[in-house]
Amino acid sequence: MDSSIPTYHLKGRFWIESPQGTFLGIGRVLLLERIREYGSISAAARSMQMSYRQAWELVNSMNQHSPQPLVQSATGGKGGGGASLTTTGEKAIELFWAIKQDFDLFLAQRSEHLQL
Amino acid sequence: MDSSIPTYHLKGRFWIESPQGTFLGIGRVLLLERIREYGSISAAARSMQMSYRQAWELVNSMNQHSPQPLVQSATGGKGGGGASLTTTGEKAIELFWAIKQDFDLFLAQRSEHLQL
Repeated sequence: MDSSIPTYHLKGRFWIESPQGTFLGIGRVLLLERIREYGSISAAARSMQMSYRQAWELVNSMNQHSPQPLVQSATGGKGGGGASLTTTGEKAIELFWAIKQDFDLFLAQRSEHLQL
Repeated sequence: MDSSIPTYHLKGRFWIESPQGTFLGIGRVLLLERIREYGSISAAARSMQMSYRQAWELVNSMNQHSPQPLVQSATGGKGGGGASLTTTGEKAIELFWAIKQDFDLFLAQRSEHLQL
């Protein structure tokens, strides 16, 4: 490779906004996947070194920006009753990764012949 | 508008990387445009509430990640001799805004029918 001609690549990130603000980004999607895995918001938060409060606020934000909640909590008090994804939560994860695929493809295609 | 069906939009940002790291993002492009406007790195930095040191480091990074410098300084010591964009600098600005147009178009198109 000729070191005088660097290979440039396009990088980026994306997120989904509702009129009220951020609805879904990579961090929120990873949190949803952890909730699915651990069946609990507090265990999911712990596994990501996130405070329960922060995780709860993210879940609350997602639930409020959606026609249907993404996460449902069983009764049992603060972090005690377990939590699971709704069908809408599953759809949100699917939608995010589908967009990610298109986004990555755009970046890869637009990276071709990127030179000054 | 039915408040139960939020309108989601895709948002994002992008930047150009060389194998050595970030080459060009919106902040760097705005700095280049200010250098063109003010004819000086220090005046450009001041106009953006950026330190001369930070502006100089960004310019240095861009120059080093490119086959040709983007900014050339006249002699005259630290911030004293003026600076101007090279043809490569002009091309970099042009390239960035051209990609921005494609990127925004992608986001707008992928935002259509975005629902859960």
